[in-house]
Amino acid sequence: MEGYVPGEQPQGKGFIKLNTNESPYPPPAPVLKAIRAAANGDLRLYPDPMATAVRRKVAQVYDTKPERVLVGNGSDDLLTMIIRAFVGPRDAIAFPTPTYSLYPTLAAIQGARVRAAPYPPDFSLPERLFGGKAKATFVANPNSPTGTAVPPKEMAKLARSLKGALVVDEAYADFADDDCLRLVKRHRNVIVLRTFSKSFSLCGARLGFAVAREDVIAGLAKVKDSYNVNRFAIAAGVGALENVAAMRANVERIRATRARLTAALESFGWFVYPSQSNFVFARVRPNQSAEAIYGALKRRKILVRWFGAPGLEDGLRVTVGSDREINALLSALREILSGRGKGSRRRQA
Amino acid sequence: MEGYVPGEQPQGKGFIKLNTNESPYPPPAPVLKAIRAAANGDLRLYPDPMATAVRRKVAQVYDTKPERVLVGNGSDDLLTMIIRAFVGPRDAIAFPTPTYSLYPTLAAIQGARVRAAPYPPDFSLPERLFGGKAKATFVANPNSPTGTAVPPKEMAKLARSLKGALVVDEAYADFADDDCLRLVKRHRNVIVLRTFSKSFSLCGARLGFAVAREDVIAGLAKVKDSYNVNRFAIAAGVGALENVAAMRANVERIRATRARLTAALESFGWFVYPSQSNFVFARVRPNQSAEAIYGALKRRKILVRWFGAPGLEDGLRVTVGSDREINALLSALREILSGRGKGSRRRQA
Repeated sequence: MEGYVPGEQPQGKGFIKLNTNESPYPPPAPVLKAIRAAANGDLRLYPDPMATAVRRKVAQVYDTKPERVLVGNGSDDLLTMIIRAFVGPRDAIAFPTPTYSLYPTLAAIQGARVRAAPYPPDFSLPERLFGGKAKATFVANPNSPTGTAVPPKEMAKLARSLKGALVVDEAYADFADDDCLRLVKRHRNVIVLRTFSKSFSLCGARLGFAVAREDVIAGLAKVKDSYNVNRFAIAAGVGALENVAAMRANVERIRATRARLTAALESFGWFVYPSQSNFVFARVRPNQSAEAIYGALKRRKILVRWFGAPGLEDGLRVTVGSDREINALLSALREILSGRGKGSRRRQA
Repeated sequence: MEGYVPGEQPQGKGFIKLNTNESPYPPPAPVLKAIRAAANGDLRLYPDPMATAVRRKVAQVYDTKPERVLVGNGSDDLLTMIIRAFVGPRDAIAFPTPTYSLYPTLAAIQGARVRAAPYPPDFSLPERLFGGKAKATFVANPNSPTGTAVPPKEMAKLARSLKGALVVDEAYADFADDDCLRLVKRHRNVIVLRTFSKSFSLCGARLGFAVAREDVIAGLAKVKDSYNVNRFAIAAGVGALENVAAMRANVERIRATRARLTAALESFGWFVYPSQSNFVFARVRPNQSAEAIYGALKRRKILVRWFGAPGLEDGLRVTVGSDREINALLSALREILSGRGKGSRRRQA
């Protein structure tokens, strides 16, 4: 089998990274301070296995109970726990496609079968998912790579139709108009995943959490590594949740830049999906090559994501960077699309 | 199934913790400084998925190649990768017993079978392990909870007799007279695990590494979480490996205290296994109750580990703390064993 391939992490300096949906803004100063304070002699001791301090803060900020929260080494760790706890070999998992390509990789590692249901053109939930018999159904909402989102009401309908778990992967929910956290209160089978990576600017700290009913959380806790989250991640999580206003201010800036980026890409004649996330997915014109544009940008030290997977060949996923980064991207694109400058000539139609 | 139960992490203050084999000494100041320096704006970015900086340092310090090193979120993360990469459902794993109780837990999570081979009284490798057909054989060396170690020559014989992987879990190797790292050079099936938790005083950072042949490492990397180690753990690992002399100095202090602790426990008429680790395992006298002594120590705010598992009921595992902590332990034990003071009377024989 092939492992999951994360976005490029350039080794050289000077790249504008718009390929892995990181925030262009650093974590707030008080968060960095809280982390530095954790670099003390207590490092000789194990961290709290359940990251109780983070669970309590999550419960407080998101109006739930600590017993309904589980903390992970990024939300990828939580996805792994879900698969290991609920999905046996030859059991099936389901998800709409295209989506986060880690889901089929995790299924392959576990020896599980995959039921992929293609999204319709409007990116509403595929009919085929409803009433499915999979042990776990994964819906990234907002979705990647499209940035589109399904309304909570539709998600609730899906939850009611399923016997297995419905995992709503809300890595990008802070950038959206609505979210599905409240579904946990009414649906025994819903697990909502959140991460500190994107909106909280903490990709480097590896921290995420799951919200679900108490018995689901207890089942997941049994398969987690004993000490899955280190002392710095715990300090970062607590610090971040004490500074939610700073996160929301960054989100507002990103949403404003997103609107401007969307309009600019549309002005090239590209089709841009309505994004509820910190990235946009744009389909280039039929006479253009997305792969060539990706390559021409890379030669200019601007990284965006080209997937090259069936149905996505004509698309580029662009992280919403700072205004300055997006200005640089748009200038480069204008140059490339007009056929001026290095590298665009040969492979453009 | 039951999850793995880690040692108690007391919520209250003032405990002397001799129950989870943490170091009594803090990490060296330059290591803490390196970690603090990592709490910067780059936290918005993902960490290096392969923790290349740590791999390179490991290769340099332990005379191997970066391609033969894989970094994990503690060595527990690496154990999970090994099980997921090499052991399918209904496949078997093997290990001598008693040993680290995470091995059977990981097998249960994976739906794998367990072949446990009891150690003989001298804690040499059980005959039954040799030539076994398990996909992976796990030997903690030095072993927990006994602290005993098998010579590398015996381990090499075991490696030659096995078709599956031989995982030598060397969490405590820095406290031992010898280790099995060099076996990787001659044996395609050997995987050696190390951790920064114990000798490097970094339990709280969650960092370990595996050393094995290139193809084995590549196979493990496929099942690891994309970004399994955060930026602080990477900084801690690099810092620790730039300060190996400080680690070795702490190890020497712990070995000296270990000798003193062993002699003192023997003076109580207890049987103490010859320890190559940062803890000792002592069997109390037949007319004494290890559980009652554990309880009496706990009431005095001294935590040691009592396992209560078959064959271990009469034993206590005691981490080698600082001299001051060990003095407090020995005073408390003298009080308890003489029947003086609180809590020892009722349950002692």
